[in-house]
Amino acid sequence: KRQGIGEAIFCAQKSVAQINAALEMVVARRHPMLLTHLNVDSHAELTADLRDMLDYDPVSRTAFLRFDTECDEPVRDMVAVVAAGTSDAGPAMEAVRTLNFNGVDPTVIFDVGVAGLWRLLDRVDDLSRHPIIIAVAGMDAALPTVVGGLVPGAVIAVPTSTGYGAARGGDTALHACLSSCASGVVVCNIDNGYGAACAALRILKASRQIPS
Amino acid sequence: KRQGIGEAIFCAQKSVAQINAALEMVVARRHPMLLTHLNVDSHAELTADLRDMLDYDPVSRTAFLRFDTECDEPVRDMVAVVAAGTSDAGPAMEAVRTLNFNGVDPTVIFDVGVAGLWRLLDRVDDLSRHPIIIAVAGMDAALPTVVGGLVPGAVIAVPTSTGYGAARGGDTALHACLSSCASGVVVCNIDNGYGAACAALRILKASRQIPS
Amino acid sequence: KRQGIGEAIFCAQKSVAQINAALEMVVARRHPMLLTHLNVDSHAELTADLRDMLDYDPVSRTAFLRFDTECDEPVRDMVAVVAAGTSDAGPAMEAVRTLNFNGVDPTVIFDVGVAGLWRLLDRVDDLSRHPIIIAVAGMDAALPTVVGGLVPGAVIAVPTSTGYGAARGGDTALHACLSSCASGVVVCNIDNGYGAACAALRILKASRQIPS
Amino acid sequence: KRQGIGEAIFCAQKSVAQINAALEMVVARRHPMLLTHLNVDSHAELTADLRDMLDYDPVSRTAFLRFDTECDEPVRDMVAVVAAGTSDAGPAMEAVRTLNFNGVDPTVIFDVGVAGLWRLLDRVDDLSRHPIIIAVAGMDAALPTVVGGLVPGAVIAVPTSTGYGAARGGDTALHACLSSCASGVVVCNIDNGYGAACAALRILKASRQIPS
Amino acid sequence: KRQGIGEAIFCAQKSVAQINAALEMVVARRHPMLLTHLNVDSHAELTADLRDMLDYDPVSRTAFLRFDTECDEPVRDMVAVVAAGTSDAGPAMEAVRTLNFNGVDPTVIFDVGVAGLWRLLDRVDDLSRHPIIIAVAGMDAALPTVVGGLVPGAVIAVPTSTGYGAARGGDTALHACLSSCASGVVVCNIDNGYGAACAALRILKASRQIPS
Amino acid sequence: KRQGIGEAIFCAQKSVAQINAALEMVVARRHPMLLTHLNVDSHAELTADLRDMLDYDPVSRTAFLRFDTECDEPVRDMVAVVAAGTSDAGPAMEAVRTLNFNGVDPTVIFDVGVAGLWRLLDRVDDLSRHPIIIAVAGMDAALPTVVGGLVPGAVIAVPTSTGYGAARGGDTALHACLSSCASGVVVCNIDNGYGAACAALRILKASRQIPS
Amino acid sequence: KRQGIGEAIFCAQKSVAQINAALEMVVARRHPMLLTHLNVDSHAELTADLRDMLDYDPVSRTAFLRFDTECDEPVRDMVAVVAAGTSDAGPAMEAVRTLNFNGVDPTVIFDVGVAGLWRLLDRVDDLSRHPIIIAVAGMDAALPTVVGGLVPGAVIAVPTSTGYGAARGGDTALHACLSSCASGVVVCNIDNGYGAACAALRILKASRQIPS
Amino acid sequence: KRQGIGEAIFCAQKSVAQINAALEMVVARRHPMLLTHLNVDSHAELTADLRDMLDYDPVSRTAFLRFDTECDEPVRDMVAVVAAGTSDAGPAMEAVRTLNFNGVDPTVIFDVGVAGLWRLLDRVDDLSRHPIIIAVAGMDAALPTVVGGLVPGAVIAVPTSTGYGAARGGDTALHACLSSCASGVVVCNIDNGYGAACAALRILKASRQIPS
Ligand SMILES: Nc1ncnc2c1ncn2[C@@H]1O[C@H](COP(=O)(O)O)[C@@H](O)[C@H]1O
Ligand SMILES: Nc1ncnc2c1ncn2[C@@H]1O[C@H](COP(=O)(O)O)[C@@H](O)[C@H]1O
Ligand SMILES: Nc1ncnc2c1ncn2[C@@H]1O[C@H](COP(=O)(O)O)[C@@H](O)[C@H]1O
Ligand SMILES: Nc1ncnc2c1ncn2[C@@H]1O[C@H](COP(=O)(O)O)[C@@H](O)[C@H]1O
Ligand SMILES: [Mg+2]
Ligand SMILES: [Mg+2]
Ligand SMILES: [Mg+2]
Ligand SMILES: [Mg+2]
Ligand SMILES: [Mg+2]
Ligand SMILES: [Mg+2]
Ligand SMILES: [Mg+2]
Ligand SMILES: [Mg+2]
Repeated sequence: KRQGIGEAIFCAQKSVAQINAALEMVVARRHPMLLTHLNVDSHAELTADLRDMLDYDPVSRTAFLRFDTECDEPVRDMVAVVAAGTSDAGPAMEAVRTLNFNGVDPTVIFDVGVAGLWRLLDRVDDLSRHPIIIAVAGMDAALPTVVGGLVPGAVIAVPTSTGYGAARGGDTALHACLSSCASGVVVCNIDNGYGAACAALRILKASRQIPS
Repeated sequence: KRQGIGEAIFCAQKSVAQINAALEMVVARRHPMLLTHLNVDSHAELTADLRDMLDYDPVSRTAFLRFDTECDEPVRDMVAVVAAGTSDAGPAMEAVRTLNFNGVDPTVIFDVGVAGLWRLLDRVDDLSRHPIIIAVAGMDAALPTVVGGLVPGAVIAVPTSTGYGAARGGDTALHACLSSCASGVVVCNIDNGYGAACAALRILKASRQIPS
Repeated sequence: KRQGIGEAIFCAQKSVAQINAALEMVVARRHPMLLTHLNVDSHAELTADLRDMLDYDPVSRTAFLRFDTECDEPVRDMVAVVAAGTSDAGPAMEAVRTLNFNGVDPTVIFDVGVAGLWRLLDRVDDLSRHPIIIAVAGMDAALPTVVGGLVPGAVIAVPTSTGYGAARGGDTALHACLSSCASGVVVCNIDNGYGAACAALRILKASRQIPS
Repeated sequence: KRQGIGEAIFCAQKSVAQINAALEMVVARRHPMLLTHLNVDSHAELTADLRDMLDYDPVSRTAFLRFDTECDEPVRDMVAVVAAGTSDAGPAMEAVRTLNFNGVDPTVIFDVGVAGLWRLLDRVDDLSRHPIIIAVAGMDAALPTVVGGLVPGAVIAVPTSTGYGAARGGDTALHACLSSCASGVVVCNIDNGYGAACAALRILKASRQIPS
Repeated sequence: KRQGIGEAIFCAQKSVAQINAALEMVVARRHPMLLTHLNVDSHAELTADLRDMLDYDPVSRTAFLRFDTECDEPVRDMVAVVAAGTSDAGPAMEAVRTLNFNGVDPTVIFDVGVAGLWRLLDRVDDLSRHPIIIAVAGMDAALPTVVGGLVPGAVIAVPTSTGYGAARGGDTALHACLSSCASGVVVCNIDNGYGAACAALRILKASRQIPS
Repeated sequence: KRQGIGEAIFCAQKSVAQINAALEMVVARRHPMLLTHLNVDSHAELTADLRDMLDYDPVSRTAFLRFDTECDEPVRDMVAVVAAGTSDAGPAMEAVRTLNFNGVDPTVIFDVGVAGLWRLLDRVDDLSRHPIIIAVAGMDAALPTVVGGLVPGAVIAVPTSTGYGAARGGDTALHACLSSCASGVVVCNIDNGYGAACAALRILKASRQIPS
Repeated sequence: KRQGIGEAIFCAQKSVAQINAALEMVVARRHPMLLTHLNVDSHAELTADLRDMLDYDPVSRTAFLRFDTECDEPVRDMVAVVAAGTSDAGPAMEAVRTLNFNGVDPTVIFDVGVAGLWRLLDRVDDLSRHPIIIAVAGMDAALPTVVGGLVPGAVIAVPTSTGYGAARGGDTALHACLSSCASGVVVCNIDNGYGAACAALRILKASRQIPS
Repeated sequence: KRQGIGEAIFCAQKSVAQINAALEMVVARRHPMLLTHLNVDSHAELTADLRDMLDYDPVSRTAFLRFDTECDEPVRDMVAVVAAGTSDAGPAMEAVRTLNFNGVDPTVIFDVGVAGLWRLLDRVDDLSRHPIIIAVAGMDAALPTVVGGLVPGAVIAVPTSTGYGAARGGDTALHACLSSCASGVVVCNIDNGYGAACAALRILKASRQIPS
């Protein structure tokens, strides 16, 4: 791919037959492939042979299809993924897995929502050591703003659809992140951990063009 | 008034003629009256005699019309008004002035938005000493959530219309406050400092019915 | 918890496995715990041993996990919960149960919607004796406004998602409560009986700091 | 007109030149005409000759152009117009004037918002004597619901754009009226006193076809 | 009921157990009762004895519970129910059945949507003979406007949730009816055939107070 | 231009200085140019020399800048522009003028809104003779649906921003057109007479590629 | 049909019984009929005899009911259907099948989304040869704009409901198409491949009235 | 500032008096300061002495207040700012000026909207040489998607409020960017050129922590 990010199949609006067909073409080419939005039921119904080739994670609803047994040493300490609550684990893990698939091993810090601020404050020094931070939060999504105010790195917000009523399926979190009073926080679509990871990969790649 | 809160005239959708007329009736009755949403232009165009009787504050756009020179000692240390930014001063001061008019002198803490978290953390102990806190914030309105997570008192959020674009005239702040991940934070209408002060007055009054 | 309210697990966006795991940790610590948004199906699928320890109520979808057999005498006559229609029973009972779990026994007045105003008027004197009133109503949510105009206490509105079409899943009720023409009515998220109860607990606690 | 209601010109989106031109044609035909949404400035700028022929009311922004000096005795006691607050006077008076123009003299009851319920309750018997009631209210628009629950007649709700923030320019009032828990309340567009009066005129006319 | 309309139970947000319990109380009192929003599945699961007492119609999802075998002669030629498409049959039949339950036998004219205008024009003379017309239409809901422009009677619009995409679950039809360029058309909630019938009953009742 | 439509400058969000500068470049190239959204004030403030070269129409807010004195014979009877009310004249005339600028002389039929259906029906035969019809209407925008049901030609709907309240600045008209129950009606942006004319020009051009 | 487009039944909001009944009437008349929004489950449950007469396509959810064995030669090279992604196949194929049913055989170009621009650029010359182009795309729906900028023909955009979060079920794609910066692109309802095909048929028919 | 970005004053919701006061404090501290959203009128009304110290740009509505005459050599070739149309110049120049103020000199490429794709394609190689690209576009905002598909660098989208009707003041552009089918494009608030520049500065800073 022109952008240097491994290819991915978005499975949400595809039938099992369509996913099987796509995977067969991929296997024929022996091309590594990431599958996202592959829910537990669709995964279970895939052709057994294909399913056996997949490394599947139900929390993030992602699967890896890989052909190389040997890998490069993963990139560490460059990206941190912080999440507010356990309900945000799905999109947060989607970011983690997308990074893993592309050779990056992020630092993962969960359950540091701002209603219990001290848990987050305990991790500020650790966070500050990372050039790129993906902050995942739903409902009022205060986390990316607080993080953006505490650390100098690139902060990528992932608003999530957790909550009910006035949370509006993630709309409130999304618009809160976009209106963040911390300058320079950038935002991805609701629940889009995949996109946040791709943005981090773009930045890692871009940094090679930037003289230190 | 049945609720024991001093009467108020909401001037926003009234003509100068209508406000003059209302004030004349009030003066005739020698009834104390609070005016809200009285903008600078309308104030300047009021009948000079009436205007001279008003104690007007342009930031909060409120005016007091009072006939008693002597007052009770104001209630102190019971209510704190915290505001995120200087753009939130209007609604915050509307709350302060409504409290003042009803005999309450709140502690005022401005410019403690969460993008510069340390300023807020410096004031937590002070805030915790107040049984009632009015937290005023716009844009992503993270302040009420952070305050609600740090102090045990009654927290009344006033979302404001500051910001642009995704801030949607206060809608985002409003829905963020309602989705707050800090339990038991209650919410008023956008920019409604008056309502937050009235809620605080209701609580102060109610507390007399509650055995310690 | 810093706010002095018993802990709660929000079960709506958790799998049965996640709830089982959380409960096991809680049991190990012998920590009292409230579960909210635990629907009938999830409750039925919990590990039998854990389910036997729960005091479950299907209307409010709440469960208590308690280890102390003896309790303090509950606080009475301090909080009233009024609901407009039987369709509002879910959120109203969530408020009642959250209060119960935290040692408060509210006065419960159901089926007093304003389309049949006389039923509500019959209860006004009773309501006025309570310092805190939680008013639960959907559709046009006229109840909190009418109550707020009739009683001097603290009024906490819980808009509900009952209704269809223009009721917009609770949005209309929510915005009607926020625009209430009765001053000082405060508002919680749609269907958030839990939050209203937490706000009442905050006020009860705060009142101890307020000299009578 | 086919519907038997006098003709009207909606002036809001017309230039002064366009209104002058329309009036000249009307004068030439000696046709009675109602003008609505004619604001004070546009009225002042009309050709002096034409302006002199108009009976203009600035509160409702309506004008009558009439050529008959003698009139039928107006219809009384058939329609009541009730309004919640003084801010609702504009649309309420637009209904009153449209009725007047069409030979109906409604009973007018203003300032009976439900936050001060007793003022409304004092008028219930009077209201019940009217077969048709137009109820005008903004913000949470609880008035039409309360009226609809108290009287058996035809109730036509006019939501208004008074209020701010969550009142959403009348949207909240509109959707609250449509979700009214009082059965059979019908609704007009926001601020549409003209439409409510036309609906009342349709009912008065229709009633002649209905055997008693 | 104070409004003189037979009582009704709204079954949509009630469990089968709650409906059974309500019906048993009704049977004990031998009170006639209308049930609305009773879907086919809930109806099938009711206690057999109760179900046998119900006159159920699956299209309108309504049921009658009646104890009198003899009835008054129904009122004819007073109300017409017109519907645009077969997809609008549900709300249209809810209006018809609510009228039937209250002793009114409306003229029913279906499938006269304005995309095939001639079918509607063929029925204009018939429609004009009715003092009250309920016009049911979804999507762009042009029908109530066209009817309102052709007949002089009271026109009550019922926007429906038929359509997809830009139809927005009935929102577009609702707002189109409210913006109708035919004066004096009044509007009910989306799919609210019951409410439209109640409004017609209010008008029929009111007309007795109006001297011809 | 690649699409074969004369170039246009959209003046709405440009300062007078920016429009002057753009015109000077155009004059230097001696290139014909259409200006849209040029309001009366901006037009009056243009450099006198440039203003003198413009053929300006205040209703449509368009101006022509042309250098050829001789023109081809305009294309007639191919496009009809129908508009519902006089308030829709602005966008309707924008379509007419854009067609004129591009050598097409449309048939113009105004004031045929569906609330007075007979005026439209009188013109159906005339309309049917035109292969392309641009239908301009606001509020409930019933006109394009009715036209689309009556004629076989290509129907391009232009929803307009006329109306208030539930008309939502054209949103209701837009979504009503998109949900039209007449098949194959296509839609342009709110008030976008320019775009409708461009679509008509595309169709006229495309028809040359289509064998009869 | 007056518009010269074959008749169609919209099956989405009809029960299997209703579709069976409609088909029986059609068979009795031996009238060709297109069925749209006929999902796989409904199709499977139809009366076997009727189902055997249908030519059903599960991707587009359309079925043909035809009685003539011989057909005219289909019209070729006049319409192209381009789609951005495989998730857009449903509405795109609905357009293709509606065209097929009406004797038009479009050129089909799938998987040319603008994120991989070169695939689209490779097809521009081919596209330019077609007088009518239907462009189907979801999410940000950039495809119709890019196509509209590259080709001179009539461009009909079909926004689709693919995507999640900020894609808002197709709302974002719809409004992006309507705001397209390519002039003269016209738009259909979300997922409305049927409507786009009807518009193309209207244009093909209209072109016969247009002299070349 | 903790994030290493120069301080800024957001002037939009401040009075001239408030801006003067803020500037005086800044001057006293001799602290460099960026002013944003300072419109031409407010700028003209500032105290003359203060105004003379400002380097003001009316297009971007920004001003620099600087005290050092000597500067570091600006960083070049690291950031490109691309804008779709001249109406997007305001936010685009706000990004450029914010970068300038912080020592970065971006490559500026205007007027490359995708409706005239060839202008953009001519610049792709140039764009690809930049590690960070800020893409500014309104209406359908197709530009960031097309750019994101063509270049491997970090792409920061700035949706703008240009357009009318369905453009919804920038909402459509915002949600289109968030739904971009090009992976890893991140998004700022509507018209927020300042935020995009801050994000670019965060990335430039972060890249120093990333080993090449
Ligand atoms: N700033 C405010 N925001 C909301 N409501 C207000 C405000 N000021 C006054 N009110 C309410 O408006 C009522 C007076 O309304 P009016 O009679 O229209 O002046 C007061 O009794 C208050 O309940
Ligand atoms: N019904 C509820 N509505 C809103 N918030 C709740 C509810 N129940 C629990 N919570 C909050 O959710 C927190 C627990 O979230 P979690 O860790 O995801 O289980 C509690 O501490 C409460 O603050
Ligand atoms: N205040 C109003 N609100 C809504 N519709 C109105 C109003 N006044 C007049 N109208 C309608 O507008 C029509 C006249 O519109 P026009 O020809 O644009 O002046 C009248 O026949 C009425 O149907
Ligand atoms: N009234 C209009 N509505 C929508 N788009 C327009 C309008 N007038 C001109 N345009 C488009 O705007 C382009 C010129 O934009 P600009 O370069 O900003 O003046 C033209 O090529 C047209 O595509
Ligand atoms: Mg959070
Ligand atoms: Mg803030
Ligand atoms: Mg209610
Ligand atoms: Mg009211
Ligand atoms: Mg219809
Ligand atoms: Mg119209
Ligand atoms: Mg796309
Ligand atoms: Mg663009």
